[in-house]
Amino acid sequence: MSARVGWEPVRRVRTHEQVLAQIEQKIFDGTLRAGEKLPSERELVMMLGVSRTSVREALRALEAMGIIESRTGSGQSSGSVVTDKSTPALTNLLRLHIALANIKLADLVETRVQLERSAASAAAAARTEDDLRRLSSLVESMRAADSDYPEFNELDTEFHLTIARVSGNALAADLMQVLRGAVEREMAEAFAGFDDWRAVANSLVDEHEAILHAIGKGDGQAAAELAAAHIVRFYQDRIANS
Amino acid sequence: MSARVGWEPVRRVRTHEQVLAQIEQKIFDGTLRAGEKLPSERELVMMLGVSRTSVREALRALEAMGIIESRTGSGQSSGSVVTDKSTPALTNLLRLHIALANIKLADLVETRVQLERSAASAAAAARTEDDLRRLSSLVESMRAADSDYPEFNELDTEFHLTIARVSGNALAADLMQVLRGAVEREMAEAFAGFDDWRAVANSLVDEHEAILHAIGKGDGQAAAELAAAHIVRFYQDRIANS
Repeated sequence: MSARVGWEPVRRVRTHEQVLAQIEQKIFDGTLRAGEKLPSERELVMMLGVSRTSVREALRALEAMGIIESRTGSGQSSGSVVTDKSTPALTNLLRLHIALANIKLADLVETRVQLERSAASAAAAARTEDDLRRLSSLVESMRAADSDYPEFNELDTEFHLTIARVSGNALAADLMQVLRGAVEREMAEAFAGFDDWRAVANSLVDEHEAILHAIGKGDGQAAAELAAAHIVRFYQDRIANS
Repeated sequence: MSARVGWEPVRRVRTHEQVLAQIEQKIFDGTLRAGEKLPSERELVMMLGVSRTSVREALRALEAMGIIESRTGSGQSSGSVVTDKSTPALTNLLRLHIALANIKLADLVETRVQLERSAASAAAAARTEDDLRRLSSLVESMRAADSDYPEFNELDTEFHLTIARVSGNALAADLMQVLRGAVEREMAEAFAGFDDWRAVANSLVDEHEAILHAIGKGDGQAAAELAAAHIVRFYQDRIANS
């Protein structure tokens, strides 16, 4: 019997997947870094001994993942460059994942609350005068009556990401951006449905100001509670029942 | 002057990107669900009026993102199927992102701590007798002296993911898996470097048992503190200085 156990079906690894894996491996081990150019399609064809189609399929996949950017043109300026701008691609993939795995908006909100709570608390300990000035100027801009919703949303996003960056955790800032981006459409739709979006925006700015005040005082506990309440309140009052 | 402001450079949207965008849109709006079959390459070529190359490039990108699986074979059983198994692809993309954006391991550990803390606390409130039995049996299996490291790591992962699932937040469980997966190689290397990995494993199992005990008592605060300390201790003692 023993010769009959422990076997697994062989999965054919296709050529473009091997190309993909080699490029990814060079990124993992640090041989390929952000800003560096990939060899040209023609060079990859020669070095890897595969067809141009396979090389191109691997490059298209890496582009869709936000890992490389292709530059059009010819000669020195053409070819693909490794980027560190994979946050939008991560956002897109998480949105697809959420749609396919039927993840509830409430779970996403809860996860954001966890990250925002920790970021606000750590920011209250780490903030400098410069950080406080930057956050304060964002609150001023959000208060300005002549901004429209997209501009307000951009400032709002920047306020939250700045807190995460002040906390010193770069991954938390990226994840926060990814989670925010995954519900951007829902947020925009909610705002579009308000009779007076500016009134809603004003109360959000008041909440931002309170968070900023707690961070300024170095009160991490209060900053965390205010940040959590800020997100939960918006969701419960304006999205959950809409 | 006004005719000279407000212009933006046109970015050429390539054909395969438009194919990709149409498929993604059908996932976002719920027309395409996990488990459903995509039209065949030939059908997509006809319906979208594009080349077979463009269709194939879009499908390869979706495969690399873990959104579709291609089935080999011919006739009814061939073609691509939409999956809900995008967690490994998310893990891979996050690993690439971490490598390219130079994100510190400490930031990743800190983010895991935040998620694990919240999951343990919520699990202590939500756990059923069944949940406790499942967690307890995982602890027993980890305690078994004859497991090797890969098996131990699988049980360890399952213990943490079960807590996240018991907490009721599906996204937190997925993110935890993604963050864990992103450092799996570092963990395996750390274990390989221990003189006596089983001794390290035993102390981890003791910590798991203490977390389980707190969850069993419904003591969310203690469960959160123990879960956080469990991760921070492993990292500080065994990875940060290695």
